[in-house]
This record gives sequence, structure tokens and C-alpha cells, in this order.
Amino acid sequence: MQIDLNADMGESFGMYTMGNDAEFMKYITSANVACGFHAGDSSVMKRTVGLAKEFGVQVGAHPGLPDLQGFGRREMNLTSDEIYCDVVYQVGALKAFVEAAGMKLHHVKPHGSLYGMAHRREDVASAICNAVRDIDPQLYLYIMKNGVVGRVAESMGVRVVYELYADLGYDAKGGLVITRVHEAHDPAGVAARVVGMVQDGKVEALDGTEIAIEGSSVCVHGDTPGAVEIVTAVRNGLEGAGFSLASPSY
Amino acid sequence: MQIDLNADMGESFGMYTMGNDAEFMKYITSANVACGFHAGDSSVMKRTVGLAKEFGVQVGAHPGLPDLQGFGRREMNLTSDEIYCDVVYQVGALKAFVEAAGMKLHHVKPHGSLYGMAHRREDVASAICNAVRDIDPQLYLYIMKNGVVGRVAESMGVRVVYELYADLGYDAKGGLVITRVHEAHDPAGVAARVVGMVQDGKVEALDGTEIAIEGSSVCVHGDTPGAVEIVTAVRNGLEGAGFSLASPSY
Amino acid sequence: MQIDLNADMGESFGMYTMGNDAEFMKYITSANVACGFHAGDSSVMKRTVGLAKEFGVQVGAHPGLPDLQGFGRREMNLTSDEIYCDVVYQVGALKAFVEAAGMKLHHVKPHGSLYGMAHRREDVASAICNAVRDIDPQLYLYIMKNGVVGRVAESMGVRVVYELYADLGYDAKGGLVITRVHEAHDPAGVAARVVGMVQDGKVEALDGTEIAIEGSSVCVHGDTPGAVEIVTAVRNGLEGAGFSLASPSY
Amino acid sequence: MQIDLNADMGESFGMYTMGNDAEFMKYITSANVACGFHAGDSSVMKRTVGLAKEFGVQVGAHPGLPDLQGFGRREMNLTSDEIYCDVVYQVGALKAFVEAAGMKLHHVKPHGSLYGMAHRREDVASAICNAVRDIDPQLYLYIMKNGVVGRVAESMGVRVVYELYADLGYDAKGGLVITRVHEAHDPAGVAARVVGMVQDGKVEALDGTEIAIEGSSVCVHGDTPGAVEIVTAVRNGLEGAGFSLASPSY
Repeated sequence: MQIDLNADMGESFGMYTMGNDAEFMKYITSANVACGFHAGDSSVMKRTVGLAKEFGVQVGAHPGLPDLQGFGRREMNLTSDEIYCDVVYQVGALKAFVEAAGMKLHHVKPHGSLYGMAHRREDVASAICNAVRDIDPQLYLYIMKNGVVGRVAESMGVRVVYELYADLGYDAKGGLVITRVHEAHDPAGVAARVVGMVQDGKVEALDGTEIAIEGSSVCVHGDTPGAVEIVTAVRNGLEGAGFSLASPSY
Repeated sequence: MQIDLNADMGESFGMYTMGNDAEFMKYITSANVACGFHAGDSSVMKRTVGLAKEFGVQVGAHPGLPDLQGFGRREMNLTSDEIYCDVVYQVGALKAFVEAAGMKLHHVKPHGSLYGMAHRREDVASAICNAVRDIDPQLYLYIMKNGVVGRVAESMGVRVVYELYADLGYDAKGGLVITRVHEAHDPAGVAARVVGMVQDGKVEALDGTEIAIEGSSVCVHGDTPGAVEIVTAVRNGLEGAGFSLASPSY
Repeated sequence: MQIDLNADMGESFGMYTMGNDAEFMKYITSANVACGFHAGDSSVMKRTVGLAKEFGVQVGAHPGLPDLQGFGRREMNLTSDEIYCDVVYQVGALKAFVEAAGMKLHHVKPHGSLYGMAHRREDVASAICNAVRDIDPQLYLYIMKNGVVGRVAESMGVRVVYELYADLGYDAKGGLVITRVHEAHDPAGVAARVVGMVQDGKVEALDGTEIAIEGSSVCVHGDTPGAVEIVTAVRNGLEGAGFSLASPSY
Repeated sequence: MQIDLNADMGESFGMYTMGNDAEFMKYITSANVACGFHAGDSSVMKRTVGLAKEFGVQVGAHPGLPDLQGFGRREMNLTSDEIYCDVVYQVGALKAFVEAAGMKLHHVKPHGSLYGMAHRREDVASAICNAVRDIDPQLYLYIMKNGVVGRVAESMGVRVVYELYADLGYDAKGGLVITRVHEAHDPAGVAARVVGMVQDGKVEALDGTEIAIEGSSVCVHGDTPGAVEIVTAVRNGLEGAGFSLASPSY
């Protein structure tokens, strides 16, 4: 009865601040740290890894498409080899900060459109899985159940953590509806939805259908309005339902 | 009587080709591979590491200032912490490609203005040395004798390889004269100059002064006109003078 | 019996050289100058406009997707408003260099994937046409016949120049087959094909079909192997067939 | 007895928001709009020009160094020609948005380190003045008195608006102390200081010296904490002292 709480961290860039990592880091167990392509820069990465260490949070790499202006949410038609290389590059860069801080890189989670492309396309899924395996076969890959990348990762022996989305909508096939700007949500409603997903393996899709869902990590976003209230409600909801919060061990 | 021959490699970017790495890699023993800030991109890095492996060349990271347009040759006023972070980021990215290829990262050599800044400024030198040590204390740092960074590296216990420049001019204090565009040179003249530097520890500065010089690696550039003729002449000159060509071992 | 010869110019970036503009500019009547998103930088733009002025070549803006690494040839899912803004930005930047040189901006030609997207998608076509009209209603828009953008431009009253491709293949519907790297061609064959397209309004598609084609400007690429030989052959072929070479007047 | 109130606007980028332009635009008479190098992007530029039009605010271009991560506040060693080209590029891009909105570009104000470099260096000052003159000799150039650029602009016949800084400190020679992050200030204190500068032509430098100062425009920053309170106090202070607020006319 253990569950992980992951969030995207380190999305500030230069003088631009996004989210409140110093606060949000207190509530999560795993951090997906941006690697400088869609968000983050080298200074933000160092600072974010330091924060994660301070709060005992496991650090994963959160590679994205090379498009800072679009925040990695504008799909780009890269070749499979370009995706492999962009993932190795970004994960390697973050891994260096993690190891310089005396920690071990815990996982990789693709960001935004890259995440969606991996869910749908075999070539993208293979590129990402190959990159993860070539860097360190012990790394977890955070993805969603029911997608192409899950099947590919399992067939390649890549260690997978399936995740549930606290604050994003699902379509009837279990796919995620990625929006450019995350919307506000009611904390209690989000918490109840999360507990339902984790306990019953079910969630209501955006079209009203009830769909099966499965995961051992819950993703909460730190850049939504009321993010701290939401993550607090989710934590309390999960603990109240008997779950202990922890990141998957190696 | 062993000497290393190093060159900057992997400086192409996207559709833009610079140098002829596939040819030049045959003549050197250590490659300094650009890491995507001043030159190179993730696909070029993978390809360049593959070439180095094919020809048995040791691979080092060649981090530069974040300025692709200026090729890292326009000085930028970064803070010491920004330089630390930019070096960790770039070296980490390249290290991932090297390890994915089953090799071990051999060294770090700062590029262009970053190299010059490290030679002159204590804060820059410390930032780079700290980055190298935090990533892997076994890494060599390729720099020039007679600069601030040499003193800092030695005091910190960072392993140093001092290098000599086959095709760039020195000022009277032993400093390098970095130009935006490298000029053409006479192969035989370059080779004789290199052998003189290595054997006698002396070279003529641009102002005609004879200066003392010391190093166990010779840097040759692959993007000068006639680069292959020059490196061939240097190799032949050194071997004719009784030196064997090899990269420093771990 | 007048025909225009256009080519993409100003595609170098920083230390990276692409094509031989100083030579190729002698053979063309209209230059499509890259604007810094997919290729070119501000210094290259100034130099290229200067070259065009020297050789009496009309200057057009050649805006592309914001992806230097992909050279604007990797499709990106931008919104219509983002495309409008990216086109206004790039065309405005180039227009300033043209006017600073005492000339008048002649046309706009979308580059690479942006060109292909305009050919197929109504929203992209409208965004580009709106941008051109808002900047200067006298500007020509260089595009291909048979696409969405032609219909949109004509309905909006944007002045259109239809172009033929000397050195790229067509599919059976008259669409262009955009490749990442342009291939080498036989000069005489290219010239004969161009004269055929211009005189007879027909060309053989890649699948062997004969398709109808129409245009008053011929596009030749300067970054293919043998580009100067090809453009010389095309010029000679057209002049031999009785055409005079000139850019469309205002 | 007329005074201008200018502020840097349009400094958001992609998903990153900086300042509250929709609110701040109500209080100023001239907007310096970022042009995509140190801040801003094409979509932000369009939106910001639209806001300025809505509130009757004159629009100037605010070109900066090509360094988004450093927000144009990290000095870079560009050549004079590179600066000329980067200014023409950025001003041209913004000018297109201004003209597409049916307005006329009002002025140019260099940003951050570029502003400081122009204040101190003849080559940088000349490059900027040449760019402004080549684009449109009617453009105002917003700068500080007592610097190199003022002398150069006046000798070249470039129209100058000297400005005073409401919320930044001066050194004993009248130079501005540029900080990476702007600090908070007391609105009443800032207002009194501004009125003093405008009425008496004097201000206290950071070292306690009283220095002579002169200007017909007051710059207030919108990204400081309490920026709206400060600009309101400054407006009220100036109007209370008998000044009417307006942008310099053509």
C-alpha cells in the first residue's frame, strides 16, 4: 500500500520563475526535473536538485522537445534518432547534477508532447526506451498505462512506473488530454478522484465514460493555481485511505 | 617520450558542417567534443563519439559559452556559479553519449573564450575545476601552462594535461592569441615549431620573443585550411623525433 | 516572355557557411533571404542584402519555423496566431535591412516545412497571407500553384508569384517532395526540365505521371552539389528558348 | 512642463510571464517593448503592441543582447558591426508589429548591458546610432545624459530623449548601477526623488554625493515588487508639481 507522488520541477528559466519549487518540493516524493530544452537551465537544474536533496525527494530527468518558447507542448516532427540523442543529452546533463550532489538519478519521464508522442508512436517509444537503457538500465521510466511506450518498455526490459494524473483529463481510451495551460481545480475533488483511481482502478473520462486506469505514482502539477492546496489534499486523501507515500526504490 | 595529439571535434550543427571529422579523427589521439552550447548538437555528439570509438581516440568534453552564433568566441560576463553549472551540464551531456558507447570520458577542455577566461580569472578557473572534480575526479583537465587555471587545478588536485598549440600564436607572456577565424599555415613550418616546443620547451612569440613553454599534448585544429596536411606533418615530425603518439592513460 | 529565377540565400549562421552566395547571386534575379529562425543571423542578413544590391537582385524575406537545428524542415505544431507572429517578426527584421540599404522589400516566400504547411493547411495559409498583407499589401507571395495557400492568397487579394522547382521532385498531385538534404542533379537535365515546365506547363512527377504545372518564377537551390553549373544551364536554357530573365516588377 | 513616463514592456516569453503589462500600461506614456533577444517573443510583441495601442501609449523598440537566459544583463563582447546588425534586426521586427497595428514606431531604447555599453563605449554607441538612423531618422533614441552615446547621437543628428531613473541608483559620475534583479522601493520616496530630479536637476548618488541630472522622460520598472504603487505615486507626484504627462511628439 505504497504510492509515489511525482511533480514536474525546475521549470524556471533565467529571470523567469515558474511554480514555487521551494514550497512544492515538501509535498512530493519524486521530482521530474526539466533539462533545459523545453524549460530549465543549468543554474535552475543545480538549484532544483539541491532542493530535492534537502527534502529527501528522488530526482528524475524530465526531457522535452527543443522548444523553450512552446514549453515542449508544440509537437515537432523529429526523427527517431534525433529523439534518442535529445533524450541522452538531457538525461546526461541532469544526471551530472544529481551525481555532483551525491545522489543517484532515479527515473526519466518524458515531458509534454514528447510524452504524448511516446504514448502513440512506436519509433518515439523505442528511441526513449533505448536512451534510458543505454544510460542506465536501472532507471525507471515514468509513463502511462495503455500506451505504445508501455508495451515497448516492457518488451525491452526497461523498468516502468505507471502514473495517474491528478489534475489532467483522460479521453475514453485512457489517453491524456494535454493542454497548453493547466487549469485550476478543486482540491477536494482532485483528492477524491485520485483516491478513486488508486483504490478502484477507475476514473471518469472527459466524455463521461468510466475507464480502467492503473498506476503506482500520482502526478500533480505545481504550476496550476492552488497547486499547494491540491497536493496537500491529495496527500491527505491517500494517507487517509491507508497509503504510505514513497518513491519506488531501486 | 610519449605525446598526445588533441583536436576539437564535433563542431557541426544541424545542417551545418564544420571540419571533416571523419577524416581528421584518423590522425589524433584525443578528441575534444563540442557539447551543444557554442557548437555541436545531440546528434552530432553521438556521431562524433562513434567516430572516436571507431578510431580508438579518447573522448573529452569541450564545453563552451552559451553562444552558438559567436561560436563561444565572444566573451560573456557569466557569474562563477553560472560557469560551474554550464560546465556540469555540458560535460554531463557528453559523458552520457560516451558511456552509452561503452567508453569512459577521458578529459575536459574548455573552449574558446571560456578557455581564455579560465587562463586569466581565478573565479572562472575555480568554477571549472570544481565542476570537473564534482563530475569525476579522475578526469583530466586540458589547459595551458602559465595561467591561473593551472595553479588552481594543481592546488585542488585536479589532474592536468598541459597542451601546446601547433597552429595558434603566443604572446610574450605565454598567453594564447585567440582569433575568431583560424588562419592557414605551412605544414612543414608548423611541424618544426611543434617539435621545437616539445623537445626544447621553447617557442617564438608573436612579438619575436623566445618564451618557455611546456606540455604533453599538442592541439591541432581541424577547421583550418589544409588541416589534414598540417596534422600529418606534425605526426611525422614528432615520430621522426622519437616520440610515440598516445593519449594520457587514466 | 519574362521569367524570374529565385534562390534561397543568406543561409549561413555565425561561423557556419552554407552555400556560396557571393557566387550564386550573379545568376539569379530574386533572392529569398533567411531571417534568423531556421537559418541566417543578423550579420548574415546585412551581408546578403548587400550582395543582392551589388548584383541588382530583388530581395524577399524567407521566414521559417523557429528551429535552427532542423533548418526549418521539421514540422512544428504552431497555432495560426503563432505563425502570423513569427512571419511578421522575421519579415519585419529583414525589411529593416533592405530599407537600410536603400532598397524596397520585394516578396515573401515561406521556407521548408512552413511552405509545405501553407500548401496544405487553411489556417497556416491564412496566417501567412494576413502577415504579408499587414506588413505591406504590395509584397509578392512566392508559392506553388495547386495548394491551399494559392487559393487563400487570391481570395484575400495578396499578390502571388507561382513558382516552379528546378531541382525538386513533384508528387502526382503537384505537391513538392521536401527532403532534408537536397540531392545532386545533372545540369542539362534540370535545364531541359525547366524549359519544358515553363513552355509546355507540364512536368513528370516522381511516380512517372505527367502533371500540369504553372509558374512565372523558377526556384533553384544554391546548396546542392553543382549548384552553379545547374543555375547556369537553367539560365542558358531559358534564354535559348526566348525568355528574358527578370524579377516581377512592383 | 511636460514629462514622459517610460517603462520596459513585453518581457514575458512563451509560457513565462514577467510583469503585469495589462495593468502597468495604464500608467505610462511610452513603452519600450522587448524584441525577442533578451526577452519577449513574436506573440508577446504583438500582444504588447496591441495593449499599448489600447491605452494610447507610444511604442519604442527595446533591443538587447542575444541572451535570453541572462535577460540581456550579462555583458557580451560583440563587434560593433554585430551590434549594428542585432539592433537593426530587433527594431525592424518590432516596427513591423507596430505598423501592422496602424501605428508608427516612436523610439529605440537599448536594454540592460547594451544600454550600459552604449553609455561607455564609442563603438557601441556609434553602432546603435547608425542603426537608428538607417531605420528611420525620425526615431527618438532614449538614453542617459553624461554618457558617450549622448555625445555620439548629438553629433550624428539622432534625436535624443534623455531619461531619469525612478528606481535605480546612480554612481557619482551619473552612471547607472545596473543590477540583475531590481529591488523593492518605497513609492513615496521614489516619487519625491523623481520630482526632485525633474524640478531641480539633482539627485543623490549611491555614495551620498549630489549629482546633476537631466531628462525629459522618467523610466519606471514594471517588474519590481510594488511597481503599480510606485508608478502611481510618481504620476501623482509629477502632476502635483505641475507637470503634464505625455510622450515626446514626432
